[in-house]
Amino acid sequence: MTTQAGSIDLELPQLAAAYARGSVTPSSVVEHILQEIASRGADGVWISVVPREEALARAGQLEALPGRDREALPLWGIPFSVKDCIDTVGLPTTSACPAFSYSPAKNNPAVERLLAAGAILIGKTNMDQFATGLVGVRSPYGVARNPFDAAYIPGGSSSGAAISVAAGLVSFALATDCGGSGRVPAAFNNVVGLKPTRGLISGIGSVSACRSIETLSLFALTVGDAQAAFEVAHAFDENDPFSRPDALAPSRPLPAKFNFGVPGARWLDFFGNSDAAALFALAVERLESLGGRKIEVDYTPFEEINDLLFKGPWLAERYGALQRIVDEQPDALFPITRDILVGGRSISGAEVYAAQQRLNILKRQVAKLWDEIDILAVPTTGTIYRIDEVEADPITLNARIGTYTNFVNLADLSAVAVPSGFLPNGLPQGITLIAPALADRHAAAVADRFHRAGGLPFGARHLPAARPNHVKQREEVLS
Amino acid sequence: MTTQAGSIDLELPQLAAAYARGSVTPSSVVEHILQEIASRGADGVWISVVPREEALARAGQLEALPGRDREALPLWGIPFSVKDCIDTVGLPTTSACPAFSYSPAKNNPAVERLLAAGAILIGKTNMDQFATGLVGVRSPYGVARNPFDAAYIPGGSSSGAAISVAAGLVSFALATDCGGSGRVPAAFNNVVGLKPTRGLISGIGSVSACRSIETLSLFALTVGDAQAAFEVAHAFDENDPFSRPDALAPSRPLPAKFNFGVPGARWLDFFGNSDAAALFALAVERLESLGGRKIEVDYTPFEEINDLLFKGPWLAERYGALQRIVDEQPDALFPITRDILVGGRSISGAEVYAAQQRLNILKRQVAKLWDEIDILAVPTTGTIYRIDEVEADPITLNARIGTYTNFVNLADLSAVAVPSGFLPNGLPQGITLIAPALADRHAAAVADRFHRAGGLPFGARHLPAARPNHVKQREEVLS
Repeated sequence: MTTQAGSIDLELPQLAAAYARGSVTPSSVVEHILQEIASRGADGVWISVVPREEALARAGQLEALPGRDREALPLWGIPFSVKDCIDTVGLPTTSACPAFSYSPAKNNPAVERLLAAGAILIGKTNMDQFATGLVGVRSPYGVARNPFDAAYIPGGSSSGAAISVAAGLVSFALATDCGGSGRVPAAFNNVVGLKPTRGLISGIGSVSACRSIETLSLFALTVGDAQAAFEVAHAFDENDPFSRPDALAPSRPLPAKFNFGVPGARWLDFFGNSDAAALFALAVERLESLGGRKIEVDYTPFEEINDLLFKGPWLAERYGALQRIVDEQPDALFPITRDILVGGRSISGAEVYAAQQRLNILKRQVAKLWDEIDILAVPTTGTIYRIDEVEADPITLNARIGTYTNFVNLADLSAVAVPSGFLPNGLPQGITLIAPALADRHAAAVADRFHRAGGLPFGARHLPAARPNHVKQREEVLS
Repeated sequence: MTTQAGSIDLELPQLAAAYARGSVTPSSVVEHILQEIASRGADGVWISVVPREEALARAGQLEALPGRDREALPLWGIPFSVKDCIDTVGLPTTSACPAFSYSPAKNNPAVERLLAAGAILIGKTNMDQFATGLVGVRSPYGVARNPFDAAYIPGGSSSGAAISVAAGLVSFALATDCGGSGRVPAAFNNVVGLKPTRGLISGIGSVSACRSIETLSLFALTVGDAQAAFEVAHAFDENDPFSRPDALAPSRPLPAKFNFGVPGARWLDFFGNSDAAALFALAVERLESLGGRKIEVDYTPFEEINDLLFKGPWLAERYGALQRIVDEQPDALFPITRDILVGGRSISGAEVYAAQQRLNILKRQVAKLWDEIDILAVPTTGTIYRIDEVEADPITLNARIGTYTNFVNLADLSAVAVPSGFLPNGLPQGITLIAPALADRHAAAVADRFHRAGGLPFGARHLPAARPNHVKQREEVLS
């Protein structure tokens, strides 16, 4: 074993096997992760890291457990990160706003459940301030560095979370997703983003952006790892006004034949990135090779729901949740975040009710889709932008990035974002598999098969040797 | 057969039997009803009445059907009224605001279903303007005259609807209920008010007061008649943003033993009317005599939900639905209605989201009640007021009247208001039996047994001979 965390494989089955073999211990894993974090320097991934002594003490506690007790803990010794809008005792919660920082007295219930299952907290990850943005560049803690090309955005708002997984610093990351925050950074960092049905993971002890439509989410290197963490994290919480009983449909294997929807050609927009379009076409072929029959669907209701989210009344919920700091300390906010949040102030109650009515009608249109298709497959994003491009036109480009993610929570759907391949410039892209509410495990089953069939390297630690022309390479793999 | 409609018994089974015997025909029933309406003069019950020729033509069409076709129509020849906020082709919809009046091109779907089942529309009933109020005195069409004592309010907002049934002018009335509009007038006019679970009867083609929490409702002389009309009227409507699939629990007979909740003594307020308190105590005894076990429940969450409805953000929905007339023609509104609606203008979107969150928590508290009780029994109202009393203090007294009704739709419950007896001054009072969403038929079963056990006269056509001291009389009946 080297002293580099990079040399330890943090996928859950591999790490568990290494623990079983005795080739590593929780303490040695923690040591190596903290060394790796230190050696990466100011990479923008973390807002705070658990002090070495504390992390080692936690590892020591786990090691001191009798074998039987260890075996009862499904995440024994598994390192994880938590997005900095979610409370963990001992580290401040900032939501990427230093003036907002507070020291929580309790863990968020999902954090509590993950810890109780034996996981080891490494630190709190950077994010677009108040989870407002899909770009990952709206933080006073800097831009979390995209491990594939630092000139490009990491995606947000869960930028640090996705990179903490991609860079091999944790096995999984707990984050949040309102309009795509748990999926976009998955696409841009070659990891899996599991966005559960709303209400399954408690949002108590988290800084809500848009509580009625957001959810805690998970990043991991594989779908199986994300699911393993999800299965521990979710539980009904009567203190969470939006918690819902666990009525998850059971796991079932992917059927030999299934119908998958894709946005009809007139709606499929890659914003000029023909390489991304080609990659998505390959992804569709891969789904077909797995037994899928492609059905083009009308994307109109999704477009309208997207508009409701970012141009419409849900901004008022975002503003309301943060009203005090927005009204009293506006200068403490990241400028663009402040401008967005202030926009929610003038939205009237009447507009909210009107939008909720309209959303109900649109949801009904979406619901009919499931008579035709088993799963909806979309590009996670149409393209990726450089940091300087986003800084020059922050609102437009942020909105474009949300084209295939914004509607999912408003429409009450579940989704798994999964890597699909690499652009010629070496940057990863992904697709998202979307299923009805509570069909999370079905989306995961398709995503897992799709991911395995791709044969891609996981995360950013094993970068493909030859960067250019990956589209072509993937074609060869598939042909 | 006399020429007075009052001499024809309009209960469904009796009227069907009279049709079967041939002692009356739909035409003769229509004739007699229209004569009776004419002879009552300006009673404030109607905003418009179907012209005689049209009503007789309709009756004639029904009579011309072959016997087999008649038998297929569950409401063949049954006269009914429609609250004037619900569209019926051929009569204007005013919602009790002349300036708002329009001529609908289509029937509301429930009206359409009732007509298709053979019912005969008699006319459109008076109401508190825009269904805003529980008093029945907020209409430019006058106060619908309480048939028990014209000095007293009829209750609202469905004042004319309830009286059209009580006075024997129709067999049932289609109305609406947001905060109690389908229950309060039932209590004040000795009829049954069935308030279905929200979303079961289409609200398309009706002037919404508060679309997300209101429902169409039914009045009839008996629970069975109200249910018969409800079973015809309800159907999923994909055009109604709040329609929900019919997942009604099936009918079941009242069990030999059941638990019923009543508000704990500290919350049970009759606003100084000790006669009403005594009547409610008798109603509780009657439920016990039917096998019920009384359990006092914490009324705190219901009180807080009441406040959310009438002091809180749902006013913004009411305002939003009527924004154009409120903003552009404020002088066209009934003064108190205008003042109330204008209050919704300044409610912010952020307040709406906050209230919806709070409501979710309160609903969860209410949901726990059903572990302990099968049904909740409340006085429909704590007391009744004279018209002059309400005019002197319109807001406070209106709010008091809603103490036991306001929360029901917000909490997503079903309810049946049923007569319980008469006060010494001859005015009727009622109780309301409340069940969870979609347990409508269970509430109706308890209400039906309770109503039958009371042995009260139905409506206002067979007034008890001796008005004073009815409480005492009822005690004798029960003892």
